[in-house]
Amino acid sequence: MRKMKENIFIDLDDGSTHHRLQVVIPKNKTPASLTYGCSFEVEGVLIKNPSSKLELVAENINVCGPCVVQDGYPFAPRKTYHPDYVRQHLHIRPRTVTFSSLLRLRDKMSSAVRNRFFEENFVEINTPVLSSNDCEGAGEVFAVRPDSNSLIKEMASHDHQSPMEAYFNNQTYLTVSGQLHLECMARALNKVYTLGPTFRAENSKSRLHLSEFYMIEAEQAFIDNTEDLLNVIEKTISTVVKQLLDESGDELKHYRKVTSASNDNDPVNLIKVPYEVISYQKACDVLKKENSFKNPIIRGKPLTKEHELFLVKYNGQKPIFVVDWPKHLKPFYTKAKFNDDSMVSAVDLLCPNVGELCGGSVREDDYDSLKEKLSFVGLEDKLDWYLELRKFGNVSTAGFGIGFERFLQVVLDVQNIKDTIPFPRWPHNCKM
Amino acid sequence: MRKMKENIFIDLDDGSTHHRLQVVIPKNKTPASLTYGCSFEVEGVLIKNPSSKLELVAENINVCGPCVVQDGYPFAPRKTYHPDYVRQHLHIRPRTVTFSSLLRLRDKMSSAVRNRFFEENFVEINTPVLSSNDCEGAGEVFAVRPDSNSLIKEMASHDHQSPMEAYFNNQTYLTVSGQLHLECMARALNKVYTLGPTFRAENSKSRLHLSEFYMIEAEQAFIDNTEDLLNVIEKTISTVVKQLLDESGDELKHYRKVTSASNDNDPVNLIKVPYEVISYQKACDVLKKENSFKNPIIRGKPLTKEHELFLVKYNGQKPIFVVDWPKHLKPFYTKAKFNDDSMVSAVDLLCPNVGELCGGSVREDDYDSLKEKLSFVGLEDKLDWYLELRKFGNVSTAGFGIGFERFLQVVLDVQNIKDTIPFPRWPHNCKM
Repeated sequence: MRKMKENIFIDLDDGSTHHRLQVVIPKNKTPASLTYGCSFEVEGVLIKNPSSKLELVAENINVCGPCVVQDGYPFAPRKTYHPDYVRQHLHIRPRTVTFSSLLRLRDKMSSAVRNRFFEENFVEINTPVLSSNDCEGAGEVFAVRPDSNSLIKEMASHDHQSPMEAYFNNQTYLTVSGQLHLECMARALNKVYTLGPTFRAENSKSRLHLSEFYMIEAEQAFIDNTEDLLNVIEKTISTVVKQLLDESGDELKHYRKVTSASNDNDPVNLIKVPYEVISYQKACDVLKKENSFKNPIIRGKPLTKEHELFLVKYNGQKPIFVVDWPKHLKPFYTKAKFNDDSMVSAVDLLCPNVGELCGGSVREDDYDSLKEKLSFVGLEDKLDWYLELRKFGNVSTAGFGIGFERFLQVVLDVQNIKDTIPFPRWPHNCKM
Repeated sequence: MRKMKENIFIDLDDGSTHHRLQVVIPKNKTPASLTYGCSFEVEGVLIKNPSSKLELVAENINVCGPCVVQDGYPFAPRKTYHPDYVRQHLHIRPRTVTFSSLLRLRDKMSSAVRNRFFEENFVEINTPVLSSNDCEGAGEVFAVRPDSNSLIKEMASHDHQSPMEAYFNNQTYLTVSGQLHLECMARALNKVYTLGPTFRAENSKSRLHLSEFYMIEAEQAFIDNTEDLLNVIEKTISTVVKQLLDESGDELKHYRKVTSASNDNDPVNLIKVPYEVISYQKACDVLKKENSFKNPIIRGKPLTKEHELFLVKYNGQKPIFVVDWPKHLKPFYTKAKFNDDSMVSAVDLLCPNVGELCGGSVREDDYDSLKEKLSFVGLEDKLDWYLELRKFGNVSTAGFGIGFERFLQVVLDVQNIKDTIPFPRWPHNCKM
């Protein structure tokens, strides 16, 4: 709202775009309750102003919902706020210029993801949120039980059954990945994907972790080597980013102008394929030469965030695939390399701002090898169905997972992952 | 597989369609492991056979994954199985003709839903799965905690804190609805929707209930009356069904031919708008006249499933809206009718096979009325943020929720809801 001599100028936001419509109201027609933050209906004449922008010259204006900032509205006109402050007001946050843009861009990016998979004849599968297995046995899972003690009592099969097991007859967790379920589906439908919520019970306050986040996961039959897998991954990411830039480039530019700190993370780099490829061993060679790390690289150990971001910088802030990992650094379902069974056909894709954006692998499709690996990690009983997929009408498959919020962090250059999701959940924070 | 004198005929299923490709192989070129249920690669010449259908005359054939039915494969050739049996083999189920069709149709229907909302400028919002409130206080919720006791100990703020509260600082539940979160978003973005997982901790074994299911929920600003809401609902449903019939009519017909028991539930009825509308009171008049019910209708009480299905039958197996409900039968957030505050602006849409498919209402947008209702149900503190939406820049909103699996049950005429979702979860059943 800007008050001039005779007229008042208002920026009207109807939620559909980052552009505001300027409304001009003669001072004497302005109701007192027409203030910053209010909602109103307006009738008038749409004209082009001298700088040839559309504006609305108001004739009738009616305030539907006033907003008295002094009554506790968390934002005041002409002020900018740190995202940490804005995030404390989750229910009002969507009304800010920046976050409403984020929500529209998030919607557009998930459309682009679905579109890409649709074009390639992938079938969307809603993998379950409730699961009786914790995928990689990594342990950082949430467990689930009915809230009602009387229901638990009613459903327990015997007196000493744990309340965590009464409802489903076994411990039930929130999913950490839909991969194993997708592997089952790929054997029936060939190409499948999911884009849904995923959970981690970690005590991490980092700018890259959420307790509830979204994952894009895809699985495709008849892929038995890393090269073909890299192809699918870079095609997916580049196509999605291209569609987003084509359809929402203007809003994206506007969003980044307001929020982005860096200049060297350009989303156009994600469109240029093929991406660079480096082996884990060569990556270690590169990292060994650098002595600025808090934790120096140790060959045979995982890369830290610092190492990942260095490799991206080393590659000119462009995406880089790290391939051919030592077996012990990757999960049981990863297939050994054809010519060296100490190595597996796994890949991490590293990107600016976040480091690891995507992880994928060719899956172990040999019944006996998988059986041995499952028994080694103690999952032979729990994952008998998974092993059985290799017993009947088996095919090779490969797949990958992309953290959807991290993807947004890369493309929009968002510092904190909590600012890429409508209602972030993290340790000690589950508001609303 | 059909063995003739000189050739073997195989139905090849590559997962992309309900049509099978017939492959013809000379007997002497047929590997022994080429059996029912196996996977294979084949090279050959595509020809039109005498009945002008495409078939592949095989030159080379290679079995990638054999299938020895006697080793425990749950299905045998040329047999049909009851869905209850098929469902016991969730990881193999997608390979059956019927269920792979279901999965493709489910994918197409969720695309149609997203498409409809996209066309109308709705923004998709991922409402949270983890929530600190249980929406309507209905009680049938799952609660969540980290599986690791050491993590709980590490994160507890004091020694006597419940393990259910240590991670987030408060009890945390699996969502039963994203509606309240969408109301917050509609006040920023105008039109919003979600299509995501929802949970109920009920001990129900009915053919219409799941512990984990998907809901389509939408909320739109500037709607303050039932009529406009009905319009949005019937437009949504009819457009989605029309797209599905246009794009997948052939597969849908094929699916229903195999599975459907009834002839009078025709999906074309869902396309014909406007739907019939009846008030709760008039519905009771109709039901009063019928004396075949197990439980007769009592005026002022909810409709039972039996009553719902009768009203649909009474309406010629076509969808019917029931409007103008007594206040005490609907949740606190429902707005009173303008001319009669014992009634609320709520609606149930009843459909063949399932009864209630969709529920919606105009939301209470008056600060003082909502405050009174919240304090009456004891949610004033927990839902302070929800009340505050009415304090600053308020607008009227209305919205609705459609059970996605029930929607599939109506359109595809599926008897049991467990056969509409890839991995069903229900009491005592959370396999895989």
